[in-house]
Amino acid sequence: MTDSSSERIAAALRAWIETAPPGARLPSSRALVAQFEASPVTVQKALRALTRQGLVETRPGVGAFVRESRVLQPHDYGWQTTALGAPPRRIPQLSAALRVVPNDVIALHSGYPDADLLPSRLVRSALARAARAETALSRSPAAGLPELQSWFAAELAAVTARGLIAPKASDVVVLPGSQSGLSTLFRTLVGAGEALLIESPSYWGAILAAAQVGVRLVPIPAGPHGPDPADVEQAFARTGARAFYAQPNYANPTGAQWPPDVARRVLDIVRDHHAFLIEDDWAHDFGVTTESSPLAAHDDTGHVVYLRSLTKSVSPSVRVAGLIARGPARDRILDDVQAQSMYVSPTLQAAALDVVSQPGWQTHRRTLRDQLARRRDLLVAAMAGHAPAAQLEAVPPGGLNLWFRLPDATDLRRLTADCEDAGVIVAAGDDWFPAEPTGRYLRLNYAGPHPAAFADGARVVGKALSRD
Amino acid sequence: MTDSSSERIAAALRAWIETAPPGARLPSSRALVAQFEASPVTVQKALRALTRQGLVETRPGVGAFVRESRVLQPHDYGWQTTALGAPPRRIPQLSAALRVVPNDVIALHSGYPDADLLPSRLVRSALARAARAETALSRSPAAGLPELQSWFAAELAAVTARGLIAPKASDVVVLPGSQSGLSTLFRTLVGAGEALLIESPSYWGAILAAAQVGVRLVPIPAGPHGPDPADVEQAFARTGARAFYAQPNYANPTGAQWPPDVARRVLDIVRDHHAFLIEDDWAHDFGVTTESSPLAAHDDTGHVVYLRSLTKSVSPSVRVAGLIARGPARDRILDDVQAQSMYVSPTLQAAALDVVSQPGWQTHRRTLRDQLARRRDLLVAAMAGHAPAAQLEAVPPGGLNLWFRLPDATDLRRLTADCEDAGVIVAAGDDWFPAEPTGRYLRLNYAGPHPAAFADGARVVGKALSRD
Repeated sequence: MTDSSSERIAAALRAWIETAPPGARLPSSRALVAQFEASPVTVQKALRALTRQGLVETRPGVGAFVRESRVLQPHDYGWQTTALGAPPRRIPQLSAALRVVPNDVIALHSGYPDADLLPSRLVRSALARAARAETALSRSPAAGLPELQSWFAAELAAVTARGLIAPKASDVVVLPGSQSGLSTLFRTLVGAGEALLIESPSYWGAILAAAQVGVRLVPIPAGPHGPDPADVEQAFARTGARAFYAQPNYANPTGAQWPPDVARRVLDIVRDHHAFLIEDDWAHDFGVTTESSPLAAHDDTGHVVYLRSLTKSVSPSVRVAGLIARGPARDRILDDVQAQSMYVSPTLQAAALDVVSQPGWQTHRRTLRDQLARRRDLLVAAMAGHAPAAQLEAVPPGGLNLWFRLPDATDLRRLTADCEDAGVIVAAGDDWFPAEPTGRYLRLNYAGPHPAAFADGARVVGKALSRD
Repeated sequence: MTDSSSERIAAALRAWIETAPPGARLPSSRALVAQFEASPVTVQKALRALTRQGLVETRPGVGAFVRESRVLQPHDYGWQTTALGAPPRRIPQLSAALRVVPNDVIALHSGYPDADLLPSRLVRSALARAARAETALSRSPAAGLPELQSWFAAELAAVTARGLIAPKASDVVVLPGSQSGLSTLFRTLVGAGEALLIESPSYWGAILAAAQVGVRLVPIPAGPHGPDPADVEQAFARTGARAFYAQPNYANPTGAQWPPDVARRVLDIVRDHHAFLIEDDWAHDFGVTTESSPLAAHDDTGHVVYLRSLTKSVSPSVRVAGLIARGPARDRILDDVQAQSMYVSPTLQAAALDVVSQPGWQTHRRTLRDQLARRRDLLVAAMAGHAPAAQLEAVPPGGLNLWFRLPDATDLRRLTADCEDAGVIVAAGDDWFPAEPTGRYLRLNYAGPHPAAFADGARVVGKALSRD
């Protein structure tokens, strides 16, 4: 219980300490008892409070002194261990893919395209225009700027299968990046403790968001042709899951694109099970030999919830994504988005819309496709030449990455350390597995380092591999 | 189970439909049975799949036809009702305080300052500089740009009580607005189903975030002098809560600032209970007759987790907030922030830092203080003159709002509707109560509409009140 007389004494001493030199001796307990007409217990309580607050230090048998700032020691935060308890679930550490590394290394690990591949001129002029626009000083509606909602809807509507109702602007929720969309979708469509189907391997950011929400992941093996629909059917039937998170186009990390018949069969299975397909079209703008073909374009029954990010293709600084959902699911999602982040900076929304509305955006995308193709093929060739032990399961038709299987005996930790010692950063494949990895893998980003460095990078990987 | 022969038929028909005119009649079931050498059951299954996908419509007794796009009806998303289930908890609707309204009304409801009170020139030039900076095309470390971390730490360090260890840059996590910080803090420091102490009334955004996370709110009455520490002590002892969310400076909605002795006593109670004080210093830059005096400045033991937003004082478009926490709590918080949003746009971070680093920022804050004082006093006078039935419990020393108690018989819904009919938007006090409201209240934002409209606004409120 609070004790106002000890507090009164502590307050008076605090005022005295404010003006006293560090190291000054406080009046003795006996003197304080007399001065404040209080019991020794009360005086001791006041002194303990001041000690706890770091204002006073007590030397047993000598007295209490104003604490000197220069002897300050970092606190022991042990009390938090009890207050925090064990986390309800362990959120994995951030993947190596997000590591920021010095400029002088060959960075094959990153999940982002090099600045050379971004529409830099468009981004800078869009941001400059946004600085002058009304949006620089205003809020945004919770679901996003209507013009940007319309753009996201129109992009999907343009490819929506004939006979289906195209999405409307009001089906769109603008998000501060797709990562927050994943958290929201797992929270609203799945929920803690519930089952979520996920490809294996799959995007580590989705595995991270799933851990945060506490959903139970049900991994479905997925190779160069996506998952086997029979596996998907079985997993739904066995677990009663209500959702499947997938990247049907240029899956991260494998780069796989589902063949049309796999896409159709999975969509039918999802419908049969009255479930959601959470389609993460992260690499929509990174087609190399094909175009991204969203499953959402073949659904108007609210089964596919579609996520498209502009962060990677416009600029990592323009964190904007669009989510398209229909029916009550969209309302539930919007409620969560609002409670989580209120609204997205209208400056970023306006800048993103500006970039993708410029004629230069289409030119940029064409150039980008050529650059990605050249880079992809160069890295494939470099690895084949210098690191033949690393097996590429398939040359991906799009995305940013190559996914290599390594010999089973490979010590991944040693391999990545050896590469790093030689100035090459690579990402061990383990981060992309929702459960135990089924083999030793390496993900290399051909959109990251300058292609001139590919041969050197591959040589280092090959040398590290041959050491095993 | 998947049925590959019905799928084969459906795929063939789909291809045929692609080229057929809308309304065209499909071959009869009998013809299809013959053509595909399949059973009637299999053919029916294929037709049902096409119907479900909206490609075909069946007229019983007549046949199946290619569906016409122009007769498309909106879907019934009833299946989602089962898939979604009842929400684990009801997230309240967005408060009236976030409503976007036309320009020609007197908007006393908003939670944001008018654009006239923003450092517009600084914001625009900061965004323009950010458009040219490297940050326009790059990512940010998960915890924020180091320079901005340093600024947030230095702001709190400058007022940290002598003898205490000042916060370091590495104690700071930069957030995309303080709303996401509230979700993160409630998730990591409290957790679903656990108790969280909260002032009553309190910020509706915190009540919203608490509902999203599913924490159990324990309301503590808080008047013009903050909460009664004895109530806080009792609530901690009774519930075993590990955290108290509070706005000790210029609480929203009341504008109350805790007197120093209340602050000290609450801090001692929090420490005694090995708990966290989640201090939301939302109005740090909105002192009117006093300065904001963070409790975090009196703690270096990791008990106070401090949240400061720049969104309201710099620009609602520059959504940036800083969170300061020490010890393992900071690590747990950062893990959640990463899983939720990865990182904050470095463009927004750079722009925010640019604004607050300009000499003009201090000038702006001084001008702002005078403007807020004048506006506050004008609205107080206007309400006293034109709406005497509305009782102001205290003239707040800072913040953006006045908090009026209305006669108990007031029909708040009718009152706000009457005001709106007369072109004045006001916010009913109910949104700010974590439980049933203890009376009828009105929150009026003196920083919202132009002061020239205050008299008219107050007259409308007074007239609506006199009707009850």
